Amino acid sequence: MSSERAYPLNAWYPAAWGHEIRHELFARKICDTNVVLYRCKSGEVAALEDACWHRLLPLSLGRLIDDQLMCGYHGLVFNSAGRCTFMPAQKTINPSACVRAFPVVERHRLVWIWPGDPALADPAKLPDFHWNDGTEWKGEGGTFVSLKCDYRLVVDNLMDLTHETYVHAGSIGDAAILDSPFEVTHDDKSATLSRWMVNIEPPPFWARQLGKPGHVDRWQIITFEAPNIVVGDVGVAITGTGAPEGDRSQGVNGAFLCALAPETATSCHYFWNFVRTFRTEDHTLTGALQRAHVNEGKGVYDQDHVVLEAQQRAISANPRQPFYNLNIDAGALCARRLVERMIERETPSPLAAE
Amino acid sequence: MSSERAYPLNAWYPAAWGHEIRHELFARKICDTNVVLYRCKSGEVAALEDACWHRLLPLSLGRLIDDQLMCGYHGLVFNSAGRCTFMPAQKTINPSACVRAFPVVERHRLVWIWPGDPALADPAKLPDFHWNDGTEWKGEGGTFVSLKCDYRLVVDNLMDLTHETYVHAGSIGDAAILDSPFEVTHDDKSATLSRWMVNIEPPPFWARQLGKPGHVDRWQIITFEAPNIVVGDVGVAITGTGAPEGDRSQGVNGAFLCALAPETATSCHYFWNFVRTFRTEDHTLTGALQRAHVNEGKGVYDQDHVVLEAQQRAISANPRQPFYNLNIDAGALCARRLVERMIERETPSPLAAE
Amino acid sequence: MSSERAYPLNAWYPAAWGHEIRHELFARKICDTNVVLYRCKSGEVAALEDACWHRLLPLSLGRLIDDQLMCGYHGLVFNSAGRCTFMPAQKTINPSACVRAFPVVERHRLVWIWPGDPALADPAKLPDFHWNDGTEWKGEGGTFVSLKCDYRLVVDNLMDLTHETYVHAGSIGDAAILDSPFEVTHDDKSATLSRWMVNIEPPPFWARQLGKPGHVDRWQIITFEAPNIVVGDVGVAITGTGAPEGDRSQGVNGAFLCALAPETATSCHYFWNFVRTFRTEDHTLTGALQRAHVNEGKGVYDQDHVVLEAQQRAISANPRQPFYNLNIDAGALCARRLVERMIERETPSPLAAE
Repeated sequence: MSSERAYPLNAWYPAAWGHEIRHELFARKICDTNVVLYRCKSGEVAALEDACWHRLLPLSLGRLIDDQLMCGYHGLVFNSAGRCTFMPAQKTINPSACVRAFPVVERHRLVWIWPGDPALADPAKLPDFHWNDGTEWKGEGGTFVSLKCDYRLVVDNLMDLTHETYVHAGSIGDAAILDSPFEVTHDDKSATLSRWMVNIEPPPFWARQLGKPGHVDRWQIITFEAPNIVVGDVGVAITGTGAPEGDRSQGVNGAFLCALAPETATSCHYFWNFVRTFRTEDHTLTGALQRAHVNEGKGVYDQDHVVLEAQQRAISANPRQPFYNLNIDAGALCARRLVERMIERETPSPLAAE
Repeated sequence: MSSERAYPLNAWYPAAWGHEIRHELFARKICDTNVVLYRCKSGEVAALEDACWHRLLPLSLGRLIDDQLMCGYHGLVFNSAGRCTFMPAQKTINPSACVRAFPVVERHRLVWIWPGDPALADPAKLPDFHWNDGTEWKGEGGTFVSLKCDYRLVVDNLMDLTHETYVHAGSIGDAAILDSPFEVTHDDKSATLSRWMVNIEPPPFWARQLGKPGHVDRWQIITFEAPNIVVGDVGVAITGTGAPEGDRSQGVNGAFLCALAPETATSCHYFWNFVRTFRTEDHTLTGALQRAHVNEGKGVYDQDHVVLEAQQRAISANPRQPFYNLNIDAGALCARRLVERMIERETPSPLAAE
Repeated sequence: MSSERAYPLNAWYPAAWGHEIRHELFARKICDTNVVLYRCKSGEVAALEDACWHRLLPLSLGRLIDDQLMCGYHGLVFNSAGRCTFMPAQKTINPSACVRAFPVVERHRLVWIWPGDPALADPAKLPDFHWNDGTEWKGEGGTFVSLKCDYRLVVDNLMDLTHETYVHAGSIGDAAILDSPFEVTHDDKSATLSRWMVNIEPPPFWARQLGKPGHVDRWQIITFEAPNIVVGDVGVAITGTGAPEGDRSQGVNGAFLCALAPETATSCHYFWNFVRTFRTEDHTLTGALQRAHVNEGKGVYDQDHVVLEAQQRAISANPRQPFYNLNIDAGALCARRLVERMIERETPSPLAAE
């Protein structure tokens, strides 16, 4: 809460699912900037600032001419690098006439853009989101477009699953979460919270997935990759079959995936998926798992989002009120500190000697 | 208009009708603060700030466990005094963990809360609103929740009934109001405006209530109790039967009751009733009188509220424009000065010696 | 873009079509001021500030009594000059009690008001808008009430018709506009942009109007009269019949008319007409031309307004971003400078020696 800015700019943020971007104009606001995306005939995705150099009309109101974008007002044309290639009624084109182009990479079924310094936009910095590839892990997720909360409130939510007990009682919630110790570790880019609930009654959701009676060992190993990725390695296995020691063969394993893009300081786009390595070809199960998360207000993520948006409204109405913290917040606080540091590195103190 | 703040905090404000508060969570904003109310099993009403100590989620999104309130996000529990009695996954409770509890008293069919210094919340300061008890005087009122005007505009409205002539022509309006002198008296807490219209044709509403032909003496004795109560003692009696001297036995007597709570500086909750001592068991009349005041835009209070909300919009759009005053504003101005003094006493001048 | 204020006050602005103003109250916001208009029994139009002297209630919520306006709250009465002539319950009227009256002139089928210094409100300064008289030129226009853009964006739009090629492709748009040179001339009050497209295929709209085969000479002679009038003299004539030299007898001639009133800095009222001197008695054509401009989102002006409102939203979201200019903007820039100067003359620099 101590930083002025809500997000670092030098980061890869998901702008859209790959299948959303076709050879047509697609507008989305990322990091307080309007962006227009489209797929070139080569298959590459272009992302430009969605405002004409000339008079600011959103370029997404114009149209594509091959791989170039024509403004819908006066017909200026920009190529996929943002350079103006046509001005109406004049032969000479102002060489400075261009709109901002964002570095773009398509990977792990998502289109990622880099709103910060293009010179730093190294694809090697893309977050590890391989669970979403559709190869080993299977699932169908979705998007919350313009969820009305700071993306960090989503991170808080996912980095502390004790909330399942209260927000999701009856599905994945379980008082055992409260009784089980957890451990937080981190490096300078990621934080991991691990919790093992050994020899417990499985909660209803996991009992159904496992399909066997008896007690289980349940794990939640949640990894945050700053500033915007959360992956939760979750599952249960029959107690005594060695899961805590690494043998999950007598269990079922899923992963919840979260990739966030700030829209503004108080809203975000949330790309989610829930993938699994069990019954991967069972499409009925795939659909059921999707609906368990989002289903016209009744899914577990729907329940979260009522809470997150109410929390944001309360914070916005009381901007100076501090947050108080509990032990359970250790993972979220660690995650927030990593984000803070990314932001601070982008805005060096005027007293900094370095 | 000279004070910065719109309302004093050290006052009893009506938060709800008693019958609205059951053993369930009830949210209402009073004096720019979100409050959650509920009735304990003992019958007492609790009122807490509607924001969890931990992460600000409105507690009204949680649930009651006996007489304690559990937050719907992480399960923190607060008792009716606002003290935290449970934190998830930890044994020690931070002793400073509490949410604000407001002094509450239920009286005269309303639930009153004190948003100011709890040490000053003396029930002896509750306004006299006994007409609303349902004993001697009978009637059924209602609530305008979040009426979009400063509560003082409602006081202005009720402290000058010459507006009846223009806003309520055809029902209770009467040009005789304009011709009749009035008197304003006050002490340091209340102001009273008295007007007698002697030997006049009764306006249609009162002619119906009286049910006798001939001229009447009509009275309007309106008392404001700072900062938020208006009671109008109103009625007519056959001329010459001694009403001005105190004998109302040949007349009919009603009272309009108004208890206000600021919601914000430009909106309020208005608890109203119209009670009477005639035909008190006539429930058809009770319903008719209620509908005469509020009836899908056609009642006299509906007419007022169109005016009040339009006036507030105009004031908000022209915040520096001064009000000009007429003779008829004497009662309202006296009432406003009493409120001003209450506010000033709460915000002593930096130059004050006391 | 360099001036703080968006509009001069010392100017005649259209408030309504003459036929809109009857012997009843009509409210409209002009130059950030609420105005109430009505027609007196003499036929003259009165325009007062729409806020009672006493308590700011919009006078448009009151009613007319002959040619005077009675407030709907406390019955104060104001004459058409704005002077209070009645106060409730008092014999003496405060001589300063008045509401602002605006100079009004009805001319060219519009009602014009002067929001600035009344001493400067010379009817001789009314813009020339005679094309709208309904005498020689015929047509039926309309009004965009509260169009959500700075009125100067409409001027920009009309002073550069190259946008027709992109916004109105298929009707009046034509690539020939881009290839034809234009000339801008101006004096201290008006700017004129002239473009002749000689020996071209007529675009579909004009081909239909002309009703003859073959190439045409097309003209667009657009005159801006600061701060708020645009008149476009447009048409085509058979090539070689002398139109560029002044003989338009073998052609068809129309004029688009635009009179603008700022509502706020980012919204305006746009009174438009399209008039012609050909087939003036053909009412079917009159209706068709009206629908060609405005027709439930499908007319050419509807197309413009999608662009204009999107442009305003982009500008409001990026208030400091400069505009870049093209050669085609010469007419619009000239027009904007004339407006700038009008505004500057109303707000002399503190360093000005004059």
